[in-house]
Amino acid sequence: MTLGHVWLVGAGPGDPGLITANGLAALRRADVVVYDRLAPHELLDEARAGALLIDAGKSADNHTLTQDETNALLVEHGLAGRRVVRLKGGDPYVFGRGGEEALALAAVGVPCTVIPGVTSAIGGLALGGVPVTHRGVATSFAVVTGHEDPTKPHEGVDWARLAGATDTIVVLMGAARLEGIARALIEGGRPASTPAAVVQEASTPRQRAVTGTLATIAGVARTGKIGAPALFVVGDVAAFQQTLAPSALAPLAGKRVLVTRTRAQASSLAEALRLEGAHP
Amino acid sequence: MTLGHVWLVGAGPGDPGLITANGLAALRRADVVVYDRLAPHELLDEARAGALLIDAGKSADNHTLTQDETNALLVEHGLAGRRVVRLKGGDPYVFGRGGEEALALAAVGVPCTVIPGVTSAIGGLALGGVPVTHRGVATSFAVVTGHEDPTKPHEGVDWARLAGATDTIVVLMGAARLEGIARALIEGGRPASTPAAVVQEASTPRQRAVTGTLATIAGVARTGKIGAPALFVVGDVAAFQQTLAPSALAPLAGKRVLVTRTRAQASSLAEALRLEGAHP
Repeated sequence: MTLGHVWLVGAGPGDPGLITANGLAALRRADVVVYDRLAPHELLDEARAGALLIDAGKSADNHTLTQDETNALLVEHGLAGRRVVRLKGGDPYVFGRGGEEALALAAVGVPCTVIPGVTSAIGGLALGGVPVTHRGVATSFAVVTGHEDPTKPHEGVDWARLAGATDTIVVLMGAARLEGIARALIEGGRPASTPAAVVQEASTPRQRAVTGTLATIAGVARTGKIGAPALFVVGDVAAFQQTLAPSALAPLAGKRVLVTRTRAQASSLAEALRLEGAHP
Repeated sequence: MTLGHVWLVGAGPGDPGLITANGLAALRRADVVVYDRLAPHELLDEARAGALLIDAGKSADNHTLTQDETNALLVEHGLAGRRVVRLKGGDPYVFGRGGEEALALAAVGVPCTVIPGVTSAIGGLALGGVPVTHRGVATSFAVVTGHEDPTKPHEGVDWARLAGATDTIVVLMGAARLEGIARALIEGGRPASTPAAVVQEASTPRQRAVTGTLATIAGVARTGKIGAPALFVVGDVAAFQQTLAPSALAPLAGKRVLVTRTRAQASSLAEALRLEGAHP
């Protein structure tokens, strides 16, 4: 029996146009697509007719697949000789557990190729108006998960050491813990006046952003009703947000546009509109 | 006069297929393409016939454009009503000085859109076999430039604080300073036994990688004649390199393949080969 092949594909931060050309090519050739909750679902339209689409967020009896179950699914289809695309939000190796899947496939000898994607930690933030580095302002950045509780000791992230180690700090999945994380960074020595920003649902039509300082950002986000998924960024680069936010830069940024053309015409127009920052 | 529009496009770590779909669409519609030394030059074939292609690495009289000159060029073509793509290696905001260009354009009111790209710090490393995060192994990472001299005090990167702040440390452009950086991280408290890897020209046919520990990596890289551009990664995730390297995963990884078909057939075959990891 011929072995299949699994591609671990990063779909980017939310806008389906932010998948890579290689990722899109793999998706269009796949026999099986195993997709995540955070991968843009519009991309499933790119799979060929007859491809098996599997929601790893939900199984047939409506529970979420465990990582072991997902690994087993990839192994099963790979051993059965199929071309499998594992479609993930962001980049497969940035809190995407792609490494675990690659190791499971390596263990049974199924060929696997990672096709990296734009991580929201950098690309999503950029679309929200914040460059992670900037000459003379930030020559280093750190990316951490905010899943873990900053008020408990012995957690994976050492907020005190992190506070002063890099110019920019990006926290993913920390929307629910903004207050605690900001306090931990201040206690770790980061000035309370450090600029900070939160970008909700970066790169999608629902993108919104607020800015403040480490001292004020949790309150500003609460008042602005900023919810998950959100990116939290701390550092002097956050002060650029209001100048570099897409609404300040692109005339159609964030606008929703209804395209009233035939399908073939609409596709080309929609592409042009998307490039201007609209969401057709 | 109608204003033009500038797209700051990240072209990814080297493989031209790692540009995003949005980036490619912008490139194909551009009147002017201003490209960097690190952007994959194969992508210039995607520009339409008649597009003006400008090498920002070299001007007419063969000197490198300064950042001010590049900014001025973007402003000039933007004010003249042209669609300009500024094509950069990696991501425009990861040591790409995209923020400076966006600010220059904002200052004169030329609309500008950033189209993020796959940064080599994450995607290039992934293609070299190293995931920047891995559950239970690395829940945080830092990205820094190795341009600055680690043996001099008062430099932008505080190696001692960085040493213990995140699980994974990725150093870009540090190939020439491996020894000093490794020593600075050990002096900062990172154990000399920490796994480390260096990946040269990630994602290209010339990709090569070596692994060792913080104590040994500079010597290993010297023996292996690893040169710039290279990624230096420190942390337990570097130990995955030998299992997750593409040669271990994809049957054609790193192979060069001569495609002997008609042009139309060749294009489709080349795409299939590229997805298997070959470089047709």
